[in-house]
Amino acid sequence: MGPADNALDRLGIKLPAAPKPVAAYVPAVRSHGGPVVFVSGQLPFKDGQLTCVGPVPTAVTVEQATEAAKLCAINAMAALRDVCQGDIDKIARILRIGVFVQSAEGFADQPKVANGASELFAAVFGENGKHARAAVGTNTLPLNATVEVEVVAEMRIPMKPGGLPI
Amino acid sequence: MGPADNALDRLGIKLPAAPKPVAAYVPAVRSHGGPVVFVSGQLPFKDGQLTCVGPVPTAVTVEQATEAAKLCAINAMAALRDVCQGDIDKIARILRIGVFVQSAEGFADQPKVANGASELFAAVFGENGKHARAAVGTNTLPLNATVEVEVVAEMRIPMKPGGLPI
Amino acid sequence: MGPADNALDRLGIKLPAAPKPVAAYVPAVRSHGGPVVFVSGQLPFKDGQLTCVGPVPTAVTVEQATEAAKLCAINAMAALRDVCQGDIDKIARILRIGVFVQSAEGFADQPKVANGASELFAAVFGENGKHARAAVGTNTLPLNATVEVEVVAEMRIPMKPGGLPI
Repeated sequence: MGPADNALDRLGIKLPAAPKPVAAYVPAVRSHGGPVVFVSGQLPFKDGQLTCVGPVPTAVTVEQATEAAKLCAINAMAALRDVCQGDIDKIARILRIGVFVQSAEGFADQPKVANGASELFAAVFGENGKHARAAVGTNTLPLNATVEVEVVAEMRIPMKPGGLPI
Repeated sequence: MGPADNALDRLGIKLPAAPKPVAAYVPAVRSHGGPVVFVSGQLPFKDGQLTCVGPVPTAVTVEQATEAAKLCAINAMAALRDVCQGDIDKIARILRIGVFVQSAEGFADQPKVANGASELFAAVFGENGKHARAAVGTNTLPLNATVEVEVVAEMRIPMKPGGLPI
Repeated sequence: MGPADNALDRLGIKLPAAPKPVAAYVPAVRSHGGPVVFVSGQLPFKDGQLTCVGPVPTAVTVEQATEAAKLCAINAMAALRDVCQGDIDKIARILRIGVFVQSAEGFADQPKVANGASELFAAVFGENGKHARAAVGTNTLPLNATVEVEVVAEMRIPMKPGGLPI
């Protein structure tokens, strides 16, 4: 087990099975010609149930939304692990996360909510978990979810001289 | 003609001329040092006319919005083809699409709308058209468009040992 | 001084100190295995003060919002310069910007607002400043900011045959 796997263990987080491909899009895609992985926008699903719906702060509290953002990050890591053939420690770096927070009029604490995802990535990947981030509010989200988190990460892939992965 | 060009033919889709550069930004940009192409957010324009405006489902139906998302994807492919000097089959993979859906309060079916774009990419590029996706709602969009779709794709570019395209 | 630094001088723009890392995310991240840099969503801060809050056009005018977008771009360049160890001319290309505009119902001129950022990048980097762009509306933004701008750019990095930066 590598350091990220150990950190998940220490944090008591068991990654779920990777999210299933839905129709024409997939949970995560790795570029052919490089180490970058794009993870689809993840919702706060747990055991097949959406755990947090409606806008902050009218339907759910900031604390609940922050927990939901953490759950989105867990689901994103499940997708990343799947792209890594089961070894999450093949992830070299979290590059960017996009966090969409369903927000009632006047709510301006999206960064606090997004920290639920950001802090988990830092806890699991250490310095390599520190990422660029865009956190924004939206009036609606798919399935009425409170939060959606998408991720761009980078794999540790030795590459051939031609620039293609070995 | 390659497989993607053939698929477009079979689907009866004729890509329009590439969208024109507008002021200080351009329809699509390829990185100098790699194969990644970024396509600007596309609106559902056809023959210079915006075909779908206002929020779902109050101003337009889910079906109309889905058709609009497909049209955005067609315009994105026109931009991609232009970056490929006219040969859309130089696209190796669709990596990520971002779909913004102008949504009335309580609308939560953004994924259905986004499928209009996702399914077209899968129909045209097959396995290589399957992408990561973030679909979200917004209260407003440029020119009051119902949908906006942006794309990150990857070209088939042989690269020199130094990592720069040949 | 390189051309971008000269352009900033000519435009009378003095880049501020790089934005400080906040908690678990950082102002900008460069990938290990390539030249791509992701800059976090920047708000219109000047001298530590948020200069533009509330939606367009009810709380602020399009002109004020456009100026705020320019300020976001200045802050993004400060983050980019920091990743470049102080030499902004190590930036080879602006690849993509995402512009989120806090918008009142019915506001549809997000592209005008986004031009505040786009035109500055073009003025500073010339042809290499022309980028792909997604400009969208949102009902809320962090700290009630009027605009948020995130950036993907590319550095001039000679790379080793293995694909890793020298």
